[in-house]
Amino acid sequence: MTYCLAMRLDEGLLFLSDTRTNAGVDNVSTYRKLHVRTPAPDRVFVLQSAGNLATTQEVLDRLDRDLRGAGDGESLATVSHLFEAALYIGRLSRQVADTHRPTLGDAATATFILGGQVGQEPPDIFLVYPEGNYIRASDDRPYLQIGESKYGKFLLDLAVNAEADLATATKIALASMMSTAKANLSVGPPYDVGVLHPGTYTVEETRIEADSRVLGQLAEVWERHQHQAVAELPLLDTALPGGGG
Amino acid sequence: MTYCLAMRLDEGLLFLSDTRTNAGVDNVSTYRKLHVRTPAPDRVFVLQSAGNLATTQEVLDRLDRDLRGAGDGESLATVSHLFEAALYIGRLSRQVADTHRPTLGDAATATFILGGQVGQEPPDIFLVYPEGNYIRASDDRPYLQIGESKYGKFLLDLAVNAEADLATATKIALASMMSTAKANLSVGPPYDVGVLHPGTYTVEETRIEADSRVLGQLAEVWERHQHQAVAELPLLDTALPGGGG
Repeated sequence: MTYCLAMRLDEGLLFLSDTRTNAGVDNVSTYRKLHVRTPAPDRVFVLQSAGNLATTQEVLDRLDRDLRGAGDGESLATVSHLFEAALYIGRLSRQVADTHRPTLGDAATATFILGGQVGQEPPDIFLVYPEGNYIRASDDRPYLQIGESKYGKFLLDLAVNAEADLATATKIALASMMSTAKANLSVGPPYDVGVLHPGTYTVEETRIEADSRVLGQLAEVWERHQHQAVAELPLLDTALPGGGG
Repeated sequence: MTYCLAMRLDEGLLFLSDTRTNAGVDNVSTYRKLHVRTPAPDRVFVLQSAGNLATTQEVLDRLDRDLRGAGDGESLATVSHLFEAALYIGRLSRQVADTHRPTLGDAATATFILGGQVGQEPPDIFLVYPEGNYIRASDDRPYLQIGESKYGKFLLDLAVNAEADLATATKIALASMMSTAKANLSVGPPYDVGVLHPGTYTVEETRIEADSRVLGQLAEVWERHQHQAVAELPLLDTALPGGGG
């Protein structure tokens, strides 16, 4: 499985992906799930993937082939709007999945988050479904998740809004990732972070290794506060009339 | 959907269930999902249910019919061990689901947590699968969940062990419930709490209403600590070389 999330903030876009893949529990490996493409000076794309690893790789290969093809076919270099890129990715994804559906069924599908900026449009993020359609993040909840999205959602709901600064948003995203990795073996480090500042058409990438100092500090602070919160929560006296301890 | 959890602690057993049911989003209702049966002075059973509401109700009806039946059939009054009760519930559950499978398919199934104490055996909790088999909680992670179990799992993993006292465990359970309800509309108050002290063969039940003071306090303390945790988490400097804010 996988956990990827993206946020669309006033300051810019934030992307965070884990790298764990598994075909069963005995074939666990590390693959990058955050991919950046800059096919022209006026555009940049970030693609995060969940689902069938073979399908996501073939989608990326087709996407790069289209970029290399000097022809007049559609590619990330030719789209005029980010939503067209989302539809294009969706079409590639569906085509690849359809190719392998006779042998794999629905297990051949993949889900993507596409973020980026094209020309003077503001940066945006899209969730591209296996069916080829997409949704944007909402203004109220300016984030998208794919893969194991449930474990780490509480923190995003609580703390993320469009006005959050990128530094804070990165902390929240990492805490959400950490809660997920702790609860689900199929999600794990290293983690890839991508940050896009509007108008720069570049993505700053950072990899956070499993033994990184910041991850250790994060876990320490996080767990300490959870325990403090539990200690301070009000007692439900009425539940314990028997007073067993 | 549903969220129920149970903990097996040294001090006793703790049960917590939400009450929200829905058939689609336009048929949301409130049903009790925590059921106590005390068919004899030497035994007590707590049943929590997730899945098809009609199936869980029919299972309870059959179970009570078996209890009323003076015959020599198996019932909660006749089992010698708690695991036999788990298998018995599993059999009822499978029978009911099979009855409705022609029209409903797998949507007819239900999952149960069965907890309680029979005779001199220590209290225990079982997760009864739709297939009719069961697992116990583990010693390392002495809790079980059914329904929407992912959203609130981080806190259980972090804070629950068998030595936790019931008062603290209740706080943790409620915080886990609250995180789940916040992230998923299909889980909601009122909440039912049950506590079983070993050897008492009774379950103390409490209902926590949506507008209860303790729930409001809990939400306030919880959210404050999450925000404090985020504020104190270390910065990932390297992710922000561009310094966009």
